[in-house]
Formats: sequence, C-alpha cells, structure tokens
Amino acid sequence: MDFKTELNKRVDYIENIIYSSLIDSSKSNSDKQAEIYEAMNYSVQSGGKRLRPMLMLETSRLFHGRDEDVSYFLTVIELIHTYSLVHDDLEAMDNDEYRRGRKTTHAVYGEAMGVLCGDALLNYAFEMGLKGIKAAKDKDRALDALDYIATKAGAFGMIGGQVVDIKNENSDIDIETLDYINELKTGALIEASMVAGAILAGATKQEVQSIEKIASNVGKAFQIQDDILDVTSTTEVLGKPVLSDEKNNKSTYVTLLGIEAASEKVKQLSEEAILILRELNEDNVFLTELIHHLVYRKK
Amino acid sequence: MDFKTELNKRVDYIENIIYSSLIDSSKSNSDKQAEIYEAMNYSVQSGGKRLRPMLMLETSRLFHGRDEDVSYFLTVIELIHTYSLVHDDLEAMDNDEYRRGRKTTHAVYGEAMGVLCGDALLNYAFEMGLKGIKAAKDKDRALDALDYIATKAGAFGMIGGQVVDIKNENSDIDIETLDYINELKTGALIEASMVAGAILAGATKQEVQSIEKIASNVGKAFQIQDDILDVTSTTEVLGKPVLSDEKNNKSTYVTLLGIEAASEKVKQLSEEAILILRELNEDNVFLTELIHHLVYRKK
Repeated sequence: MDFKTELNKRVDYIENIIYSSLIDSSKSNSDKQAEIYEAMNYSVQSGGKRLRPMLMLETSRLFHGRDEDVSYFLTVIELIHTYSLVHDDLEAMDNDEYRRGRKTTHAVYGEAMGVLCGDALLNYAFEMGLKGIKAAKDKDRALDALDYIATKAGAFGMIGGQVVDIKNENSDIDIETLDYINELKTGALIEASMVAGAILAGATKQEVQSIEKIASNVGKAFQIQDDILDVTSTTEVLGKPVLSDEKNNKSTYVTLLGIEAASEKVKQLSEEAILILRELNEDNVFLTELIHHLVYRKK
Repeated sequence: MDFKTELNKRVDYIENIIYSSLIDSSKSNSDKQAEIYEAMNYSVQSGGKRLRPMLMLETSRLFHGRDEDVSYFLTVIELIHTYSLVHDDLEAMDNDEYRRGRKTTHAVYGEAMGVLCGDALLNYAFEMGLKGIKAAKDKDRALDALDYIATKAGAFGMIGGQVVDIKNENSDIDIETLDYINELKTGALIEASMVAGAILAGATKQEVQSIEKIASNVGKAFQIQDDILDVTSTTEVLGKPVLSDEKNNKSTYVTLLGIEAASEKVKQLSEEAILILRELNEDNVFLTELIHHLVYRKK
C-alpha cells in the first residue's frame, strides 16, 4: 500500500461529499444573505487534513460498515471542526489572522460575520445530521451517532475544553490541567469521529469501548505532537507561525515535560492504541498506518 | 379566563421544564469548565417572556397534542432563542450591555465567554432535541419537528436574517429588505415554534400550512410592534433603552411607514392570523388571546 496515494484518495472522496453539501452561493444569489454561504464555503474549503471524517470513515470500514451510511456524518464532523476553528480564530478569542497559510474567516469577512459564520456552520452540521438520520437505513444507529457527536462537541466536550483553555491563558498550568484541556478540546472530537464511525457500522458495545480508548490515545498523541512541532518545525512546513506557544506564554507538553519525554509519550500512546486496534480481531491496514502517520506527522 | 393568570401559569410551567434541563454548576464543580454552565444558566434565567415555547405548547394543545410530547422541544427553542440573543449582544455585533434591565452575558463573563456560551447553548439545544427524539413515542414526528426547527434557525432562517441586518447597518433600506430581515431574524423562529408544536401533535399537512401562515403574520406584527414601542414606550416599561433605533440610525417600520400606518399593519396582520386560526375548526381560546396580547403588547 502506498500510504500517500491512499491518503489522497480518501481526502478526495471526503471532500467530494462535504463540498456537495455546501450551499451554492452563486445559485442562491436571490438570497440576500448569500455572503454567509460564501463565508461558510470559504471556511470549509480551507485545505484541512480532513482527519476527523477520515477517522470516522476508516473506523466504519474497520467494522465492515457501508460507506454510504457514514456520508452525512463525515460532513457533520467536519462542519463542527470548521466552526470551532472559525470561532477560535476570532479577535475575541485567539485573534489569529492566518491559518494554513490563508486568511482566517473573520480576517476576510469581519468579526461579526466570523461569529455568524461559525454559528451557521454549527447549525448546518445539525441540519445535515438530521438529514442523515432521515436517510439512514438504521435510524437508531444514526440517532445514537449524532447524539454521541453532539455531546462531545458541547459544554461537556470540545467547548468545555475551549473554556478551560481560555480561563488558563497566560497562567502556568500543571500537566493534569493540560491533559484536561486537550482531552476535551482536541480529544473529544476525535473520539466523536471514531466512535460515530463504529456506531454507524454496528459495532458492539465492547468494540465501541475499545475505539473510545484508541481515539483517546490518538487525540492525546496528536496534541503532544502539535506542541513538539511548534518548537521543532518551521513556518513554511507548518503553514502557521512556529514558536507561537512560547510567544503566547503557553504551558505545553514541551514546556512541562521537555521534548524528549514528550516524544516518548507520543510513542507510548500510539503503540498502545495500535495494540488495542490489533486485539479487535478486525483489520484495517490503512487505519493503522493513519494513526502512525498522525502521531509522527511533520506538519 | 383571566389571561394574566393563565399566562403566568404557563410561564411557570415552561420555566420549570427548561430549568430542569440546565446543567447544575454546583453539582459539576469537579468540571473545570463549570463557569460555562454558570454563563449558560445566567443567559437562560433572564426573565424572558418565554414566548416561543409558549406558542409551541399552545399550538400543540390546539391539535390535541400531549404536553409531554413537546417538553424537550420547549427547551430546544428557548435555548436557540437565548443563544441568538447572547451572540447578538456581543461587542462584535450590537454591543449591548443591558437586556431586560440586566447585564448581558458577555458584559458579565467577557467577550470570549460570550462567544463560547452562545456556542454551548446552540449545541445544547441540539443535545436536548436529540434526547427528545430518543424519548419520543412517535420518533418520526419528533425528527420532523427538530429538522424544521434546525432549518429555521440556520443560514436559511434566523442567522440569515442576522446577516442581512448587519450588512445593512447604517444604511437606508427599503420596506422589502426590512420585511426580508424580519421574516428571517424574528419570523423564522416563531414559525419554528408553532409549526414544531403542530407537527409534534400530529397536525395534517394542510393544518401545518395554516399554522405557518399564522406564525408568519404573528412574527411580522410582533416585529412592527417592537419598532413602535421603541418610539412610544419608556426605558422603565421596556427594560431596555428606547429610541435605540433612532440612535443607531436604523430604518424601521416606524421610520418607513410612520406610526399610524405601522399600527394599522399590526392590526391587519393579527386579524388575518386570528381569522385563519378560526377556520381551523380547532379551538384554543388562550392561543387567540396570546396572539392578541403579543401584537398589542406594551412591552
């Protein structure tokens, strides 16, 4: 298997599905609010890694799910991820003007539109999710999947993580608080992606639990690697400023543990994840490679 | 029927349901993000009129729906309404420090928390809605109701109206644009409330269409009355600054039509709504009174 080729094939597959669900602003120009469709599309068409939908798709495939049963939910999870970035970048939040080498949504459309665009993306995620339930062969599974995603995206999950992150800005935090932030802010949506994939494919309760553990490890390792890259990479490779954590006086896994121990933690977490994956007695070579790729990525 | 007594009875009934779904921040103080629960509760416990859940409940009753079948959705619609106010009040949006005589959410918790609190309320609305579907006796109806609400709340509905409103700030607009803004910004959620009530109660397609028309008229009349009160009421009665439209150089029904013609329009719209309601061959004295009360309210 050529991993890069397979990876790109999946990005294309996923983007086709997501883009087809976007509102065509040129066809809707009788709508006076067409600019919000534009802003939504601009935000979604950002050249992201499409990591969350990819994890969902591959987890579904792991349990022999049909691709058409997850398609609406690939869009749901990417829309939620996208809205969270749009709001995270706002002046009122991190005040970031660039992301992935491109102007952020509020930098292009203004702060008020940034707020509304994020709102519209989150709302649209649920519009799509509800359509997904309506179209589902197994409505109960689809309902369970959307319910799981909703909980992980909200105050008990991703948004909760954002809050703790913001509350601890410019203050020294301990490793326990850092773990807490990352488990919610980054981990929750990665768990939602993989678990929703498992649920939609009809995995057993026990299998879902294993997937939760794998996803939790992947989320943690992913975030630690992010901190490592912020000090070891370059702006050209990352497409965003490096040393931003240091500039913002942020406590990270690198500042708290040092690069060596942080790298060791990435290794431990990913090895454990792959071990649990093997014990599932299901096989998905690409998913194993993907996890490896994610936690040892260079950008 | 003593309308005031009946009205207060319903406000109590609705608030009991909504408040019981809030996250108890004192019991969740091991959660490091407990402040977001507080901010959410502060925003919801604002002494609002609970108009939207009340319209939903009474429309359901009109079609002999069971109160327990709408209860989750009363919360859903009020959470969506609340989040829209929280974001509307942000510095980046209308920059309002007071609402209903009380500090706005971002004025108490800061702008970043204002953004996140709105996000959390919107997300929580769907968490509740999905629980509502799971608990429903008739899952298809509940799914249709939430789907309708979601569409009306999003870029094609309420958020779309917000966008057009913001895009036309400080510029003279014509009556057609003003109608467009209000139909989406205020009308869409009032329609969602009443139509969801009808769907949940099992109203026929034709009945749902009549309710859509009634709700559309009520929404319009409600907004025109809002504009009238802004120039004829006092800050003490309204609990918010009067003449704010003039101060903000806003085109309103009063500036475009004059008070007399605006009042006439309120009368026409509400009379037509009550006529359609009568033709439904269903009876709900309170709903008729409520519509009357809403469009001729003094605050």
